[in-house]
Amino acid sequence: MARETGPVTSFPTGTGAAQRRDSRIYLDAATVTPPHPAGREALIAALDEGWADPRRLHAEGRRARLLLDGAREALAAALGTRTEELIFTGSHVEAVHAAVLGTLKARHRTGDRVVLSAVEHSAVLQAAGQGAVPIGVDRLGRVDAEAFTESLRSPGVALACLQSANGEVGTVQPVTEVAAAARAAAVPLLVDLAASAGRQPTPSGWDLLVADPRSWGAPGGLGLLAVGANTRWTSAAPGDDGTERVPGTPSVPAALAAAVSVQAVLADAERSDARLRALTARIRAVAAEIPDTEVVGDPDHRLPHVVTFSCLYVDGEAIVDELDRAGFAVGSGSACTASTLQPSHVLAAMGVLTQGNLRVGLPPGVGEAEVAAFCAALPGAVQRVRAFLEAEG
Amino acid sequence: MARETGPVTSFPTGTGAAQRRDSRIYLDAATVTPPHPAGREALIAALDEGWADPRRLHAEGRRARLLLDGAREALAAALGTRTEELIFTGSHVEAVHAAVLGTLKARHRTGDRVVLSAVEHSAVLQAAGQGAVPIGVDRLGRVDAEAFTESLRSPGVALACLQSANGEVGTVQPVTEVAAAARAAAVPLLVDLAASAGRQPTPSGWDLLVADPRSWGAPGGLGLLAVGANTRWTSAAPGDDGTERVPGTPSVPAALAAAVSVQAVLADAERSDARLRALTARIRAVAAEIPDTEVVGDPDHRLPHVVTFSCLYVDGEAIVDELDRAGFAVGSGSACTASTLQPSHVLAAMGVLTQGNLRVGLPPGVGEAEVAAFCAALPGAVQRVRAFLEAEG
Repeated sequence: MARETGPVTSFPTGTGAAQRRDSRIYLDAATVTPPHPAGREALIAALDEGWADPRRLHAEGRRARLLLDGAREALAAALGTRTEELIFTGSHVEAVHAAVLGTLKARHRTGDRVVLSAVEHSAVLQAAGQGAVPIGVDRLGRVDAEAFTESLRSPGVALACLQSANGEVGTVQPVTEVAAAARAAAVPLLVDLAASAGRQPTPSGWDLLVADPRSWGAPGGLGLLAVGANTRWTSAAPGDDGTERVPGTPSVPAALAAAVSVQAVLADAERSDARLRALTARIRAVAAEIPDTEVVGDPDHRLPHVVTFSCLYVDGEAIVDELDRAGFAVGSGSACTASTLQPSHVLAAMGVLTQGNLRVGLPPGVGEAEVAAFCAALPGAVQRVRAFLEAEG
Repeated sequence: MARETGPVTSFPTGTGAAQRRDSRIYLDAATVTPPHPAGREALIAALDEGWADPRRLHAEGRRARLLLDGAREALAAALGTRTEELIFTGSHVEAVHAAVLGTLKARHRTGDRVVLSAVEHSAVLQAAGQGAVPIGVDRLGRVDAEAFTESLRSPGVALACLQSANGEVGTVQPVTEVAAAARAAAVPLLVDLAASAGRQPTPSGWDLLVADPRSWGAPGGLGLLAVGANTRWTSAAPGDDGTERVPGTPSVPAALAAAVSVQAVLADAERSDARLRALTARIRAVAAEIPDTEVVGDPDHRLPHVVTFSCLYVDGEAIVDELDRAGFAVGSGSACTASTLQPSHVLAAMGVLTQGNLRVGLPPGVGEAEVAAFCAALPGAVQRVRAFLEAEG
C-alpha cells in the first residue's frame, strides 16, 4: 500500500458496453460459454447469502455450507457421480492436475506411466510429464482404441486418460471401449468432460472425472473433480484444513452458479442438441465451399456445437481478426495455446493443416439468424484476408 | 448426467434470508469480511463484461483481458507491488503453496529448510513440510526475532516466512526487523498479509507476498501472490498455457471485485483504524471483566479489528453457539481448524489456554450500537454456558 491507488482503469460503463455486446455475435463457445441468466442470478443471490466461510459454526457459516452442499449434490447428479465423490477445485486445470498427480501418488508402486490420447488438454499432457505415453489419433481426431488398449497392458502404467470429446475439433472419443480395456487391465481411467459437460451425457466406465463449469456458462474460478468411491487417489498437494480433499475453500457463489446453470442447460440439452447439429451442418457446408479449405473432425461422431476448418495460405489469427471486425467472435487453433501462437498439438496429431485454423462453438441459445449472418460473412472474410496477403506479396 | 437432476436444495429466497441477516450482527471478520457493496457491483458488472477467456483474440476476450490487467494494476498499487510482480491464483492457500514450493524449487541447490514462526497459517506450515524450522513466539504471540535471525544463518535455509500479523490473536509481527536479517543472510522472505491486507500498509522488505482478498470483503475463488522482480522463483506445478505464472486462468469478475473493494476499503482505512481500535478496546475491557477469562494477543502492537480471549471451564464452540442463538456471529480457536475441532496451533505455541477460545473480528463498517449490544450480551452468554455445564456435572 506504499504506492498510489488510483481507480481501476478500463472499467467499462454499462450502456456503451451493452451496446457493443448487442451488435456482436459470439460463436466461440467451445470452451467458454457466456453466463447463463439463471447462473448469473444464483451467483448474485449466493454472494449475498453464501459469502461466509462454510467451515464456521455460526448461522452465516452454516448457511454457506448448506449452499455448498446443495450445489455439490446438484452438480453430482448432473454429472452422474455420487455427491461424496465430487470435489471442488479452483479451476479446471487444477482439477486435471489434482486428478493426475493424486493418482500417480496413490499408485506410485505401480509406476509413473500415463497412457493418454495425443489430443488431450495440455494440462493433462503436462501433469503426466515424462510418464506420458501418447497414443495417436486418426485424421478425424479419434484415438486408436486398439493401440490404447495395447499400451494399457505394458508394465508401469498407473493411469489412463481420455477426453469424452475433443473440444478443438468436436470429435467424440471411444470412451466406453477404452474404459472396458482399462478395467480389464486394472488401470484407472480419467475422463475429461471439458468439451462435453452440459451438452452430452457422461460416458460410463470412468474412475475419475474432471469438468469445466465455464463450458456450460458458469463463471470461472471453479473446477470439478470426481474420484470414484473405489478409486485409489490421494491429494498430491500439501494439506490444509479446507472443505475439500484438495487445498483451499471453494467459492460458494461460483459453486451455486455452476449448479443452477448446469440444471438449466441440461433441462434443454436434448432439444438443443438437434437444433445445434442442424446449425453446425450449415456452417460445415458453407466452409467446405470455400476454396482450399478443409473441414476437420469427425463428421458424424461429434459434439453438436463445434465446427472446425482450416484455410490454406492464411493465418487463423488474421481471419479471427477480420471476422471480429465484422462483429463475429470465433476461435483459432487451440484454445489453450492461442496466446502463445504455437501450432495446435491437436491438429498436428491429426496430421491436418495447423495454419489458417478457425473454430466455431455455438452457445446453446444461438439464433438461426445469427448463424445465417455468420454463414453469409465467412467466405468474404477469408477472401479479404487472402487478397490482402496476396497484395502484400 | 445419468442420475436425476432435481433443483438445487436449500436455496434461500431473498426476503426471508434478508430478514434473517438484518437481525444478525456479524463479528467474525478476522478472516472473511462480508462483501463490500462496491466489490459486489464490480463483480456483477464484470460478470456481464468480462466473462470471456482473456487469452482469446476477439473483442470479448480482449475486453476480459483489459479488465484483468486493470484489476492487476489496481491490486498491485494497493499492495505496494509492481504490476508485473502480481500473480492471480485460485485461492489464498494456493498462493501460499505456490510461493513456498516455487521458492524451494528455484533454490533447491541451497537446501529445503524454511524458517518460519510457529504461528504461521497452516498452509505455510504444511507447504514447508519436513523442512519447516518453526521459531517460537512469546506469550503475546510475537515471534522471537533474535532466534529467527539466528536460524537464518544455519545451512540449508532456502526461505523465511513471516506473517504481517497473526489473524487469530491480532499480534503484529516484527517484519521489518526480520526482513533486515533475511537480507543480511541472503534468504528470501515471504510475508503473509492474510490478516492485515486492506487494514494496514504492507511492511517493507518482502521478497514474496501473499494476500487473501476475502479479508477485505472480496469474494472467494481468488488468491494473490507477488514475486519480487529480483526474487528467484519458478512455479512448482505442472505447466499450462494460462494468463499467469501458475496454472489456470483466474476469474476475471473475482479479480475486478477484489480490486474495486480494496480501493474502497483503503480509501477509508485510516479513519476506520482509529474507530475500530476504540471499539476493540471496549470489547477487551468487557472480556477482561468476565471471571476466569484471559484476553490474549499483544495489547498494543496489534491489528485494529481483532479481539481474542479464552474462558476457563468451557468449550469455545459452546459459546459460539450460545452467541449465535443470541444473534451474534463470532469465531473460535483457529479459523483454519475450527472444522476439525483440533486445538489451535497458534494458542498452543503462545502457551495460553486453547480451550474456551473466542475471537471477534470487526468488519470495517461495524456500528457502535452493534458492538455495544455484543458487549452487553457477552458476559451473560459465557455465564449461561458455564451454568449449563455445571448443572450437567
